[in-house]
Amino acid sequence: MDKNLLLNRDEAFEESMGKIYQWFEEKMYFKIKDEFLKYNEADIAEMFEEFLSYDDLLTRAIVVYRLLPKSVMVDVFAYLPSDDQLKIVERITDAELNYIIGEMDFDDKIDILEELPATLVNRILENTPKTERKLINTFLNYPDDCAGSIMTPDFISLQKEWTVKEAMAHIKEVGMDTETIYTCYVKDGAYKLVGIVSLRTLVIAPDEERVMNLMHTDFVCVQVNDDQEEVSEAFKKYGFIAMPVVDKEGRLVGIITVDDILEVIEEENTEDIERMAGIIDMEQSDEDYLDKSVWKHARNRLPWLLFMMFSAMVTGAVLNAFEEQLSTVIVLVSYIPLLMGTGGNTGAQASTLMIRGLSLGEIEPCLEDAGKVLWKELRISLCVGAVLSTVNFLKILIIDQQTPLVALTVCLSLILVIMFAKMLGGMVPLAAEKLGLDPALMANPIIASLVDLASMLVYLCIAMVILGI
Amino acid sequence: MDKNLLLNRDEAFEESMGKIYQWFEEKMYFKIKDEFLKYNEADIAEMFEEFLSYDDLLTRAIVVYRLLPKSVMVDVFAYLPSDDQLKIVERITDAELNYIIGEMDFDDKIDILEELPATLVNRILENTPKTERKLINTFLNYPDDCAGSIMTPDFISLQKEWTVKEAMAHIKEVGMDTETIYTCYVKDGAYKLVGIVSLRTLVIAPDEERVMNLMHTDFVCVQVNDDQEEVSEAFKKYGFIAMPVVDKEGRLVGIITVDDILEVIEEENTEDIERMAGIIDMEQSDEDYLDKSVWKHARNRLPWLLFMMFSAMVTGAVLNAFEEQLSTVIVLVSYIPLLMGTGGNTGAQASTLMIRGLSLGEIEPCLEDAGKVLWKELRISLCVGAVLSTVNFLKILIIDQQTPLVALTVCLSLILVIMFAKMLGGMVPLAAEKLGLDPALMANPIIASLVDLASMLVYLCIAMVILGI
Repeated sequence: MDKNLLLNRDEAFEESMGKIYQWFEEKMYFKIKDEFLKYNEADIAEMFEEFLSYDDLLTRAIVVYRLLPKSVMVDVFAYLPSDDQLKIVERITDAELNYIIGEMDFDDKIDILEELPATLVNRILENTPKTERKLINTFLNYPDDCAGSIMTPDFISLQKEWTVKEAMAHIKEVGMDTETIYTCYVKDGAYKLVGIVSLRTLVIAPDEERVMNLMHTDFVCVQVNDDQEEVSEAFKKYGFIAMPVVDKEGRLVGIITVDDILEVIEEENTEDIERMAGIIDMEQSDEDYLDKSVWKHARNRLPWLLFMMFSAMVTGAVLNAFEEQLSTVIVLVSYIPLLMGTGGNTGAQASTLMIRGLSLGEIEPCLEDAGKVLWKELRISLCVGAVLSTVNFLKILIIDQQTPLVALTVCLSLILVIMFAKMLGGMVPLAAEKLGLDPALMANPIIASLVDLASMLVYLCIAMVILGI
Repeated sequence: MDKNLLLNRDEAFEESMGKIYQWFEEKMYFKIKDEFLKYNEADIAEMFEEFLSYDDLLTRAIVVYRLLPKSVMVDVFAYLPSDDQLKIVERITDAELNYIIGEMDFDDKIDILEELPATLVNRILENTPKTERKLINTFLNYPDDCAGSIMTPDFISLQKEWTVKEAMAHIKEVGMDTETIYTCYVKDGAYKLVGIVSLRTLVIAPDEERVMNLMHTDFVCVQVNDDQEEVSEAFKKYGFIAMPVVDKEGRLVGIITVDDILEVIEEENTEDIERMAGIIDMEQSDEDYLDKSVWKHARNRLPWLLFMMFSAMVTGAVLNAFEEQLSTVIVLVSYIPLLMGTGGNTGAQASTLMIRGLSLGEIEPCLEDAGKVLWKELRISLCVGAVLSTVNFLKILIIDQQTPLVALTVCLSLILVIMFAKMLGGMVPLAAEKLGLDPALMANPIIASLVDLASMLVYLCIAMVILGI
């Protein structure tokens, strides 16, 4: 079995985990260490995550962690989620901690320092050279979700007058410590970013060529305060593996690499999905489902539930107002779930497609696109409505044995509700985006409430006209 | 204004678009071309997308396209969505088409050949050298969604006996045409992949060192038939910028680069989101919302709507069975929207978090995690239920002026419905995953239907007991 193959790794992984559990029992720490070292650091971190989650294995796992080669210790630490990092930090010596923090990539270092308690951060900073301490403090002050918070200051910068040979010699000298050497950034004397050049271009260029003749000047760069979502859009659009970050004066202060963007995309998608389901994360935390406390979960879910409850009360009041009419043809009550359910579902389908289309840039919140969406949803709702109401009409006549007038009332309402739901589902996200609000946050709960209310109003009015109640 | 800055580009873009529209009127094609060339190819493609969407500008846009330098023509073509590529293909000469296809990156070439009509593909293949034609045919046969369909055969491979100097000379020679030179793949004589080495390592290593002493042998590789979703998980976990792909015999056949993975992640997320909203894309097409036909939209939305309609019919039948009891205390009808709405919303919140947790690997579909989820959702539903039912109890007593018994009936039902919805929402996705079904596809519609049905049953039974109807 080829252990390098992705599809075999799970199996090999399980097998190793079994062995390691056994060895933990027998306290054979060196065997565990050797088994660990057969794997990539990301895999080792995954294994540690499991061991660190059991209270009775925690101290033993730390013993093994401290047996690992120092470079592996650093990388494994960087891959661990922050709560596991804290567990380790509390159980190793100051010297080990300083070593690990010192050797981490700068952006990982900032991430962990943001999570650690202030006293510990101060102790670490005391052991950091003064210039780096200043840099760390600057980075710690960038707000979450902005370009500054995901960039790293470890990049290769070249002077535009240099030759390829000088540039390559510089890269060989400083390259070891930078996150990526594949894109190099060209500055003029004043620290202003004037161009970019890929290592690829340098490698295949003649030695005597000057950097300024090889560099691209039509690069794209971001400012430290740009939103990380916009940065990730740019990565997707242009297919970059790194992007330079400049301050307000145009001076190069860092770069963002594509591996951090993968995380941003995942985060933003999770946010969108949760918001569409009516969950508002009050603290923008990225805690796992199981790690988040019951009360935090409840608090994140309550706001829209309360809003939707109030609107359900209004819908209830409408039903209440028609109490007398309903009690004369009580069978109408049994079609309420059908109308409210179908309205809610069709509205959610339309708004979900719209929210996704907006976030992927397929649809713009302009009048022209709004017209196209309305026209499209109108025709879709007629197709969908025709199918659903035909099925219903027959069912009400044949199975429920109701009069054609009752069937007509229900099916006419159904078509109108579907049309209303689909067009509202199409428009609310566009309006939210136009007003600068987050469509994922606003759309679904508002649509669901409005559709419920409208469906009952339409239903009862049509019933009054057709059935004369 | 610094045009390199991401945040200024939209504005500059709009300004240029205004000028270009004017010049199109005046048929000043060379001015348009010069304006285009101020931008990155991805930007030019975005502009073309807009022009190609207007029938009256189409031919003029093609004129400008043909004025672009050939290398720009190729890159812009590669960035365009496939329907716009087709518009261009139909309007340029065979020679131009062959040039463009010939110069494209191999994976982009395969993507466009998959979309073109068969006659055109044959005409292009006739002008392709025989060895490449064979390779293209192999690639065209990989099923969608597998690693083979997103890989490229353009990569650097080194022999393990080579020195760094030999390796660098080889890279300089062939590097120009490969998609990435930043990771090089080391083969033994038999074409078997034995290790990987980064360009970074080679650049900073002494010239006389041998590749085999620098290469990593604990790399991770995928097989051509591996699912693209698993590949993208591996990219996220390990932070790679490229991964090697091998065939069943372990021979290196291609690599997958991170820019293609960004697209896969976007695609998979869109699929998840649409499925959660009850949309089944029958053809797995990645057409934009506005490009997809009305009938296709309707067909994608109908299956679950029909399913949910049938289940609403069952819920309706329950109400129907209790017709007599309902008509004696008709006010109970006005609380139906509240119960059904809250049940549906709380269920959707729980199942959405669960589906997301499963797809991010935060939750495993095992008994242990199922227990944790149940316990958590139970407590959350008690918190949420307590808040919602307190508000409701007061509202029913004070505003609706109903008896305490009615208020008790509604609030007790509400708490039970929330508990049922949250626990079902937690369990159904786990069960679906365990059974090898897609939780995003199965969960929400099934939960919504079951919760609606259960909420009416619970409500009416409690009403019978408490109110004695």
